[in-house]
Amino acid sequence: MDSSVEVSQLKISEVRDSFGRQGMMASIGASLKELSHGRCTIDLPFGALVSQQQGFFHGGIIGALADVAGGYAAMSLLPMGHDVLTLEYKINFLKPAAGDRLVADGFVLRAGRTVCVTRTDVFVEKAGQRTLCAAMQQSMMSATPTA
Amino acid sequence: MDSSVEVSQLKISEVRDSFGRQGMMASIGASLKELSHGRCTIDLPFGALVSQQQGFFHGGIIGALADVAGGYAAMSLLPMGHDVLTLEYKINFLKPAAGDRLVADGFVLRAGRTVCVTRTDVFVEKAGQRTLCAAMQQSMMSATPTA
Amino acid sequence: MDSSVEVSQLKISEVRDSFGRQGMMASIGASLKELSHGRCTIDLPFGALVSQQQGFFHGGIIGALADVAGGYAAMSLLPMGHDVLTLEYKINFLKPAAGDRLVADGFVLRAGRTVCVTRTDVFVEKAGQRTLCAAMQQSMMSATPTA
Amino acid sequence: MDSSVEVSQLKISEVRDSFGRQGMMASIGASLKELSHGRCTIDLPFGALVSQQQGFFHGGIIGALADVAGGYAAMSLLPMGHDVLTLEYKINFLKPAAGDRLVADGFVLRAGRTVCVTRTDVFVEKAGQRTLCAAMQQSMMSATPTA
Repeated sequence: MDSSVEVSQLKISEVRDSFGRQGMMASIGASLKELSHGRCTIDLPFGALVSQQQGFFHGGIIGALADVAGGYAAMSLLPMGHDVLTLEYKINFLKPAAGDRLVADGFVLRAGRTVCVTRTDVFVEKAGQRTLCAAMQQSMMSATPTA
Repeated sequence: MDSSVEVSQLKISEVRDSFGRQGMMASIGASLKELSHGRCTIDLPFGALVSQQQGFFHGGIIGALADVAGGYAAMSLLPMGHDVLTLEYKINFLKPAAGDRLVADGFVLRAGRTVCVTRTDVFVEKAGQRTLCAAMQQSMMSATPTA
Repeated sequence: MDSSVEVSQLKISEVRDSFGRQGMMASIGASLKELSHGRCTIDLPFGALVSQQQGFFHGGIIGALADVAGGYAAMSLLPMGHDVLTLEYKINFLKPAAGDRLVADGFVLRAGRTVCVTRTDVFVEKAGQRTLCAAMQQSMMSATPTA
Repeated sequence: MDSSVEVSQLKISEVRDSFGRQGMMASIGASLKELSHGRCTIDLPFGALVSQQQGFFHGGIIGALADVAGGYAAMSLLPMGHDVLTLEYKINFLKPAAGDRLVADGFVLRAGRTVCVTRTDVFVEKAGQRTLCAAMQQSMMSATPTA
């Protein structure tokens, strides 16, 4: 196996492990669906824990999911052992997120040495129909983990 | 009792009731601390449910808390029966949120007829010491509830 | 000619007229390149007036151009006589804007009754090569002009 | 004279020199009013060059002024020879900027080693009355100049 491919696969595993250690993502039932270099998709079924006062997905949860999808898209492009920190994100809510499932699809716009900029589209699914409900732009900072 | 004061107190009750119906806020243990016209403070103790992979408060949770604090600060200035929707928010993370407690303090910068702009400061408390860990700017839209 | 097409063409003319009345856009030499329903492209050649201290396009000018492109993309979808106001925008700078020409390409993500959300990509051209140098997300509000 | 005070004064001079080299700021008539460590105020009189289609200050110019005020507030806290780059900013427009003069007042929320976060308030003055018309949040990156 080519060594760059091997490193590459190891990084994907590292990102998956990091996702698995997120207490909050597990608690709400989110799962990492697709992961490749520069792209990450996360999926969340509806439930009381993630609802707001009108019975839709909570805006804060939509933001959290988008943050995580964009963040792991960024992390997937970094060297082994490098983690990410969110510097900032901005999210616009486009439609009420009424449905059975949220899907956050993040990808990297620009991967710099220290800062990586991403965009994430968040879709809500209802009876199989997918609607764009939020749009995020985010800056991630590369960080070597406190060993 | 002066009627405008009475209406005013009713609106404060209405905001508190709305907060009480947020499944997610209850699930994570958040509570509404202070509420006045144009200002809202929300408080959250640390726990596994709100952590990220390094054991700090999760950025998504910080965003959710700031979103809710700014949103209720805005709602407190609206007529009875008017709810709010988040149009967008932007949050900068300033320091790792390592501590026992998060406090999100939201206030209104400008209350327009349809759009209200807020700023929220998020502090983390550790052993009684309070540090600014995130800063948010947000637009809320006034909405009459679907009766 | 079909009347909806006619109205449509009138709206495009209205947007072009509005652009023509922008003192600042004329002063810096910006021109409206492409305009269709939900999309607007604006073009700006380099010059001293639009530079910063290192000889690149000024970040503020990149923001202004993106703001205008997104704004007219939004306006193009409104009824005749309706103008737009910028509620807010957020812009990430991805690369130094070193080149001969800036191109801001704005399009509508979601057109609501009162608020329209857009994304704009800004490219810098150098010796015919086009590079993405900034990415914006914006909220526009529909407004009837003060007649 | 104490050497840290001396260095400090030299940095303030360095920031003023950088402002003086900004072609765009000079062209539109902007001037640097106040400058101290972590704070910068910039001032701009009204004119055709900075207007939009309704005769107010152009939103793009408001963004540019806020960007520069926040940026120099950040730069004032860096070591000698260190310049700044804007990573991103987000601006909310609160009121139409109708008046004789804009004042952008930027200050640092958090000065990190590589990233500095600022907030800027923009006021419009009309007949001596000052109104908050825009609010910005920004990330600046420290950069050593290309010597």
